[in-house]
Amino acid sequence: MARQAVPLAQAYRLLNHGPTVLVGAAAGDRHNVMAAAWCMPLDFDPPKILVVLDKATYTRELIEQSGEFAISVPPRALLSATVAVGNRSGRDGDKFGPLGLHHFAGDQVAAPLIEDCLAWLECRVVPEPHNQSRYDLFIGEVVAASADDRVFSGGRWHFRPEDEALRTLHHVAGGAFFVTGESVDGN
Amino acid sequence: MARQAVPLAQAYRLLNHGPTVLVGAAAGDRHNVMAAAWCMPLDFDPPKILVVLDKATYTRELIEQSGEFAISVPPRALLSATVAVGNRSGRDGDKFGPLGLHHFAGDQVAAPLIEDCLAWLECRVVPEPHNQSRYDLFIGEVVAASADDRVFSGGRWHFRPEDEALRTLHHVAGGAFFVTGESVDGN
Repeated sequence: MARQAVPLAQAYRLLNHGPTVLVGAAAGDRHNVMAAAWCMPLDFDPPKILVVLDKATYTRELIEQSGEFAISVPPRALLSATVAVGNRSGRDGDKFGPLGLHHFAGDQVAAPLIEDCLAWLECRVVPEPHNQSRYDLFIGEVVAASADDRVFSGGRWHFRPEDEALRTLHHVAGGAFFVTGESVDGN
Repeated sequence: MARQAVPLAQAYRLLNHGPTVLVGAAAGDRHNVMAAAWCMPLDFDPPKILVVLDKATYTRELIEQSGEFAISVPPRALLSATVAVGNRSGRDGDKFGPLGLHHFAGDQVAAPLIEDCLAWLECRVVPEPHNQSRYDLFIGEVVAASADDRVFSGGRWHFRPEDEALRTLHHVAGGAFFVTGESVDGN
């Protein structure tokens, strides 16, 4: 695989089909990652996204301090880690090592991007204190985007038969997911 | 099929996996329907959802007048109609008849629910003028929810082999979609 930059005007396409994501954040020497099913595009260009972050999460605390976060889109191969990341709190200890997750530095933000994911959106918080406090709702402007060119290129996701383990995930509830399925054209 | 009520505390599960939806609205004797890929849960109980509605849309005009809307989750069988609904404006004429779409009355709101869809969420707008004007972002409180019991029951989506035409849809861009795929358990 090669991580390739995605033009910012196409960044919404990384989330448009509604995959469950991992949210990474860092502040000072602390960093963490959580899972989020409630994340979607808000605008095309400049691209903005929405993500719901419960007040109890350590990731939110780091985001509120740093004003930055990174979305990573996990593949089916990271299904168990995605569930585990969502069930543990970073306040109880580092999640990365015990879950076998590795991270790397983004191009524009200090928040951790998760290795072996398929797409990454680096975001700066657009401050909206009312939304954040009342609805746990955060707006991020996407300042860099990239994707694994095995499954996303030319502005499109494409999963070949040999890419079954690289399909994205859609959470229903309680650790039950659907894998992204067959491609269909409505035109 | 039988349309069965879904408990409000489980309503988020109708949207949690990120399907593309149809948004119906009515005001006075006018009604319309549009497609939206940017719709997701915001809260569990009482359930709230988010939907992004462009200022140019007729549906938004009706929602701003009535304070209500209805989300319908279309199946693969309605793929062409879903694309067509998104490409036409209700200002240019009624969409329902020409596209072969039928609608029925909800239990709590006057907005049209679309026949042959799989799930329905009847919503009242939670007024947030700043979000609406700046981000085209609307919050709805779900006041009634229901689903086709062939594919949603016991709080879960379940697509049997004979339900291929009833799988939900996930928009990527430009009329290209993924169908909801295989079920996997991350526990």
